[in-house]
Amino acid sequence: MSGMDQRISVITLGVADLAAAAGFYEALGWRRTPAPEGVVAFDLIGQTLALYPLASFAEDIGLPVSELGHGAVTLACNCRAKQEVAGVLAAARRAGAEILRPAADVVWGGHVGYFHAPHGVIWEVAFNPFAPLAPDGAFRWAGYGDPDAPDA
Amino acid sequence: MSGMDQRISVITLGVADLAAAAGFYEALGWRRTPAPEGVVAFDLIGQTLALYPLASFAEDIGLPVSELGHGAVTLACNCRAKQEVAGVLAAARRAGAEILRPAADVVWGGHVGYFHAPHGVIWEVAFNPFAPLAPDGAFRWAGYGDPDAPDA
Repeated sequence: MSGMDQRISVITLGVADLAAAAGFYEALGWRRTPAPEGVVAFDLIGQTLALYPLASFAEDIGLPVSELGHGAVTLACNCRAKQEVAGVLAAARRAGAEILRPAADVVWGGHVGYFHAPHGVIWEVAFNPFAPLAPDGAFRWAGYGDPDAPDA
Repeated sequence: MSGMDQRISVITLGVADLAAAAGFYEALGWRRTPAPEGVVAFDLIGQTLALYPLASFAEDIGLPVSELGHGAVTLACNCRAKQEVAGVLAAARRAGAEILRPAADVVWGGHVGYFHAPHGVIWEVAFNPFAPLAPDGAFRWAGYGDPDAPDA
C-alpha cells in the first residue's frame, strides 16, 4: 500500500467521565452498540463514534494528557430541514451542552448553530440546502455546486 | 425533533495552512471533492472530512483561536489486513506526519499505530480482527463480540 485509504473508521473522543459523556449522547436519543469493555460506542453511517477514558486514550497514544487537545475539530450533524436545527440545539442544551451559537442563517446559504458538549468536543448542527442527505442520512459533498443536483 | 439523529455529517479540521493540510491528504492518495471556495473536502463513506482555515473556523464558532483545541480526538483509518498498518504509517511519515507509535500488536488483539498529522490531528491506523470492514470500507462495531461474525 502506498498511501492511506480515504476513510475514517472510528472517531474517538477521550473523555474525563465516560458515564457522563455516554449519558449526554443517550440523552439525545442515541443508542449504544456493543463494544469492548471500557469503551462506549455509537454506530454511525459507515463508521463509529467511540468514547474512551482520557487516561487510557493518552496512554494508548503515548502522549501525556496535558499534550492532548491537539487540533481544532468540529463534528457536524446535518439536518434534513432548516427548522430542525434549533430543535437539535435545544435538545443538546437539555442534555447539558453549552450553546456557542444559536441557529442562524449563514452567508453561504445554510442554517447553522454550534454547541459545546460537556466533554469538550464542539458540534455543528447544520442545514445545507446544497447538499441534501441521502435516504440513509449519509452526507457527501460530491454534488456540491452541481446545478443538476437534486434540491440544489 | 426531541434529540439529535445518530450521525456525523462532516468532520471539520481547523488548520493554519489550508494548502499544506490538503497536500498532506493528497500525498496519501486522497482525492478532493468539489467544495465551497476556501474549503477543501474529501468525501468519505457516509460523510465528509473538511479542512478549513483556522481563523474562519474560530470566527464561525465564535471562539478565539486560543480557546480551540477542545477535546481529545483521534480519527482512525482501519485496514483490511494486519500487514497494511505499517505501510500506512510509512506513507504518513513520507507525507510529513510524525509517528507517535509504530505499528504493534495491542492487548485487545488488534494491530495499531498512531501518527500526528502536520496540522495537529492525531490519527490511529488499525487492524481490528473482530470488526472486519464492509465491502465498501464501512466500519461498524454492531457485530463486535458476536461469535458468528465473519472473520471474528
